[in-house]
Amino acid sequence: MFDPVEKLKEYVRHASVSADPQFKAHMAGAQQFLADLLKGIGFAVELVPTALHPVLVAKRGDNPAWPHVIIYGHYDVQPPDPLDQWKTPPFEATIKGERIYGRGTADNKGPLLVHITAVARLLEKNPNLPLRLTFVVEGEEEIGSKNFKAFLKENKEKLRGDFIYMSDNGILSPDQMIITVGLRGMLAFEIELTGPGSDLHSGMHGGVLMNPLQALAELCASLHTPDGRVNLPGFYDAVIEPQPWEREQLAKVGLKEKEYATFLGIKEFHTPPGYTPFEAIRFLPTLEFNGFSGGYQGEGTKTVIPRTARVKITCRLVPNQTPANMKEAIFNSIRARCPKGVTLTIKEQHGATPYVVIPPDRSNTPKDQSPALAKCFRAVDKAATEVFGKPPIYLREGGSVGLLADLKEVLGLDAVMMGLFLPEDNLHAPNESFHLGVMKRGIETSERVLAALAKG
Amino acid sequence: MFDPVEKLKEYVRHASVSADPQFKAHMAGAQQFLADLLKGIGFAVELVPTALHPVLVAKRGDNPAWPHVIIYGHYDVQPPDPLDQWKTPPFEATIKGERIYGRGTADNKGPLLVHITAVARLLEKNPNLPLRLTFVVEGEEEIGSKNFKAFLKENKEKLRGDFIYMSDNGILSPDQMIITVGLRGMLAFEIELTGPGSDLHSGMHGGVLMNPLQALAELCASLHTPDGRVNLPGFYDAVIEPQPWEREQLAKVGLKEKEYATFLGIKEFHTPPGYTPFEAIRFLPTLEFNGFSGGYQGEGTKTVIPRTARVKITCRLVPNQTPANMKEAIFNSIRARCPKGVTLTIKEQHGATPYVVIPPDRSNTPKDQSPALAKCFRAVDKAATEVFGKPPIYLREGGSVGLLADLKEVLGLDAVMMGLFLPEDNLHAPNESFHLGVMKRGIETSERVLAALAKG
Repeated sequence: MFDPVEKLKEYVRHASVSADPQFKAHMAGAQQFLADLLKGIGFAVELVPTALHPVLVAKRGDNPAWPHVIIYGHYDVQPPDPLDQWKTPPFEATIKGERIYGRGTADNKGPLLVHITAVARLLEKNPNLPLRLTFVVEGEEEIGSKNFKAFLKENKEKLRGDFIYMSDNGILSPDQMIITVGLRGMLAFEIELTGPGSDLHSGMHGGVLMNPLQALAELCASLHTPDGRVNLPGFYDAVIEPQPWEREQLAKVGLKEKEYATFLGIKEFHTPPGYTPFEAIRFLPTLEFNGFSGGYQGEGTKTVIPRTARVKITCRLVPNQTPANMKEAIFNSIRARCPKGVTLTIKEQHGATPYVVIPPDRSNTPKDQSPALAKCFRAVDKAATEVFGKPPIYLREGGSVGLLADLKEVLGLDAVMMGLFLPEDNLHAPNESFHLGVMKRGIETSERVLAALAKG
Repeated sequence: MFDPVEKLKEYVRHASVSADPQFKAHMAGAQQFLADLLKGIGFAVELVPTALHPVLVAKRGDNPAWPHVIIYGHYDVQPPDPLDQWKTPPFEATIKGERIYGRGTADNKGPLLVHITAVARLLEKNPNLPLRLTFVVEGEEEIGSKNFKAFLKENKEKLRGDFIYMSDNGILSPDQMIITVGLRGMLAFEIELTGPGSDLHSGMHGGVLMNPLQALAELCASLHTPDGRVNLPGFYDAVIEPQPWEREQLAKVGLKEKEYATFLGIKEFHTPPGYTPFEAIRFLPTLEFNGFSGGYQGEGTKTVIPRTARVKITCRLVPNQTPANMKEAIFNSIRARCPKGVTLTIKEQHGATPYVVIPPDRSNTPKDQSPALAKCFRAVDKAATEVFGKPPIYLREGGSVGLLADLKEVLGLDAVMMGLFLPEDNLHAPNESFHLGVMKRGIETSERVLAALAKG
């Protein structure tokens, strides 16, 4: 039996950044690592090509009478920038105290290894485990799973399982499991403003034309109200109030605003009125700026009026909002606000539809639910209660895993999402880490869940 | 006698970017090139160290009865970014049609070579030319001549000349000389806004805190009024209306707004009310954004809320405004507008005091003027009229050469500035070039001027 922590160190070394073509060799390294690991515990592994990064599909068990669990994960990671803020090398996983640091440790290399380890332990005890298992591990989650839907459509036959089982979601304390029952969607785009025909000397020509940077500031400043709402017509029209049981579950977590502010390193929140920060993250859409660029950014001064200025934006969407039904209104409002003197172009990037699943005991229409799905929810509830010592909490999350809507649409399958990463894990940021205690408890929980499912 | 165009090619090859320490070896190369060239025509050359890049001082003629002309130039150039917009390599000067392309061809390598060539020709004809000449060529003009004032103070004795003679200024057509009689000053600074304790995932934490990029947009958007004025209290208080002769001279140039807009590649001007674009550039202060940075700027998407956002700003100042008397009011207004939820720091960069000199026939107080200076102005007027075929025009310019105020303050000397670069020369931008016809006429004009001065 392998040591999961040592395996995680090995896995992190493959700097599988999907956003940047420079990391292509590392993407291949991560694929090979997983293929070898899964072959080693008896899986038949296939790398299915897509338009960009291949999807790894690994299968064991072929008795059609056995339950069939599809386990989802992704092998790609976020870019490591800004590099100078890392305290340990991002691609050399380093243990300090209860945590292992490195890009991808929490998102999603550690959590995927939790399930692989659970499976390996079960198969070591019982090589004839009566359970069909299919790992589907993609390489484009961090860039919006652009080719995953096409992959699902083309490989539908291979993926006729009972439900999806996965961990690409979070918890709030290392001592309590959270089952994610919803994720926000996303609309990502870039705005480019172009002014003069070329970069200009700001002394010779300054003060007579609209500087694209100024236009960018004016446009971006118009997109929020002073009270923290997004200032676009109709932006909140489709938002539905959370259900009473959702607010109850959230209250059970016992989150403290002061502690959250301390964790974020801020003195005050800037949350739309009527929502706590914890509610706003889960139940409201957003418009966030992810990057500004334009002009000189190097050392010293350059007296230039740049020809172009750019902003990268992501909107998070909530149920009833989709990239398709939101984007035209958003783009048209932005176009209508383009300051005079510059030309605006919008480059649409990836989108994700929000996702919601209602766990069995919360559903008003139990007959609509798949018995296999309900069984898995109950197995996770039981195992997590035993291993973590208290019952899990069912929460929607602020992040986006757009492929959930695709899995539902193409395969007709819902997902049971067992949270494993913590807010302190610094996902998508410098010094990402994974909690070793959570990793251990995650493996134990997953082992019990899969054992319970195998009993039939 | 050397070929000035071949010499310019050689000079451009030394990529003497003063802003970036990576180019240090090229800075030394440019110094050596000039030292060799000037030694070759009989000058005693000295490299005077400063806190950063040395100043080259080259002298010939030691008869105290002879007039003493101090010729100023700079051997440093702007960074070549954005490199992908250059049509020819920035540091391999390339002739196409009437122009020679390359970083520094116009600012200031070509214009300095004009005067060196004129001197070389005169000395070839008359090695005993009764004229003292001192070249002072610095290496920090593009980064604000930070150490030049200290250099002047420490080397005052070497620089006891009659006036400054130089070409680091522009003309508006290749057929007419412009004598620059004023330059705007500058106040350069960078604002950094810091929000959360580290970069955050915009899905997990978006919508609850002030994003530093949003704060930057709001702050920057507040700095101009919709009609194109700078929106800071007192910003225009010290501005004096241009003199009637200045407006007359400007009118003589026959500038056309439509042509200027076409040259800039814009559809409309964005000029404060009451001023034409040509007046605004010369007679009004500005606040221009030179660069935004913050968040992810690479390929694809990164769903991040960055910890910090930055803007580089330069204000151009007009007579009566100085960095010292403007900065506190500007900085305090900006500090007072810092959005809640972020912390603001201002990093002051270089400053420059505006400069004005009144040419002899425009002065109301002719007795105050130095006879040597008046003589030089008249020599330039005559030579330029002969060589270019029409009388020169006397104009203030929009750019900044802060050392002029330093030369005046430390050495007590005013400057005669013979314009040589054109708006189409793309100074500080990709595809900088220098007009070969202007170069030729510049050499002829300078030769006549120096010959006239030598006659005494």
